[in-house]
Amino acid sequence: MKRAVVLLSGGLDSATALYIAKSKGYRCFCLIFDYGQRHRREIQSAKHIAQKTACPWQLLKINLSWRGSSLLDKNIEIPKSARPGLYKARSKVPNTYVPARNIIFLSFALSCAEAIKAEAIFIGANAVDFSGYPDCRPQFYRAFAQAKDSGTNAGRKIRILTPLIKKSKAEIIKTGLRLGVPFELTWSCYRGARRPCGKCDSCYFRAKGFSEAGERDPLIK
Amino acid sequence: MKRAVVLLSGGLDSATALYIAKSKGYRCFCLIFDYGQRHRREIQSAKHIAQKTACPWQLLKINLSWRGSSLLDKNIEIPKSARPGLYKARSKVPNTYVPARNIIFLSFALSCAEAIKAEAIFIGANAVDFSGYPDCRPQFYRAFAQAKDSGTNAGRKIRILTPLIKKSKAEIIKTGLRLGVPFELTWSCYRGARRPCGKCDSCYFRAKGFSEAGERDPLIK
Repeated sequence: MKRAVVLLSGGLDSATALYIAKSKGYRCFCLIFDYGQRHRREIQSAKHIAQKTACPWQLLKINLSWRGSSLLDKNIEIPKSARPGLYKARSKVPNTYVPARNIIFLSFALSCAEAIKAEAIFIGANAVDFSGYPDCRPQFYRAFAQAKDSGTNAGRKIRILTPLIKKSKAEIIKTGLRLGVPFELTWSCYRGARRPCGKCDSCYFRAKGFSEAGERDPLIK
Repeated sequence: MKRAVVLLSGGLDSATALYIAKSKGYRCFCLIFDYGQRHRREIQSAKHIAQKTACPWQLLKINLSWRGSSLLDKNIEIPKSARPGLYKARSKVPNTYVPARNIIFLSFALSCAEAIKAEAIFIGANAVDFSGYPDCRPQFYRAFAQAKDSGTNAGRKIRILTPLIKKSKAEIIKTGLRLGVPFELTWSCYRGARRPCGKCDSCYFRAKGFSEAGERDPLIK
């Protein structure tokens, strides 16, 4: 049976990516990161989702003590959503960007994939309804794949798959619902309080997605 | 004053890379990794070298529990050195290769560099007197630089420098001696016992380097 390493954050994109990987017949191994994120309740969500699918998972604790992000530093305020178009237009990345986060995640996934002889890495990156983070864009994944090819022993035997990269949030939600993703277990809000704040980018895109998909978000009572 | 992040393993290459960075006027921040390596005494060496230069440093503990390398798994024997030419000829990477290690190290360095606004990352990778690891070759660094450019906010503001990549071990040792690298503090042997084993690749290249440089290795009494 073919194997995949799936990067699982606990958000709805990565949960959907996991269900896509499973639907394609991959035996999935999930990597979950505790990187000091403010919204650490997403870690619990990720664990619950992995358990729901009966996939093995591992929590990796990493230390980004240099911070440089409002997700890592409670002294920096998380901005209210500036609405998507703005990020593209002004090409300014909001302070919720975590320096090199996806590069770090992918590099661990690559190490794991190489060691367990997985054929694929799944990451739920999305470059449509997103905050303009550079490490969510297709050109980054193309470049990283080149680094993988030249910098690992497995090289081209491992593929990095980004099945959601060109989908809208509504399309992701529809795909997830079709595949049975337990969206009630997912978590998106950057503030990570008991309830979603409804104001941060992550809440904004989630609400927009459910609205455009004509579906109800099970997290919103 | 311009800043650099330096990846410091405790071996002679990375120590020399640190001294090169300092000689070029960089204020250096050293990253040292505890990745479960069998020769963990190199971690002590790295700390001592950083302390000697009075550079700030940070030890990062990372969990590569999936292993896939004799450096991470004591059940796999570390091979005797097969002599350099062989690796090139047969294009077989020895089992001391750690899956995606340098990609992981670089990704942390990138995150740190971006957060502290460093202009450069120094890594002592070498593709001349080496074991044929894919993540030590120039083509990998070129590819990774592209991933950095497209996948981070800082992009081209950070340069990844590999000042030793095309030097022989003898040239590295001569450069190091000129810059005052305390080679007596460095550690190379993969076995990590009290004394260098003299048999592993790392010992082989070190001995060859000192011999060709016409110098004495201060670790060998």
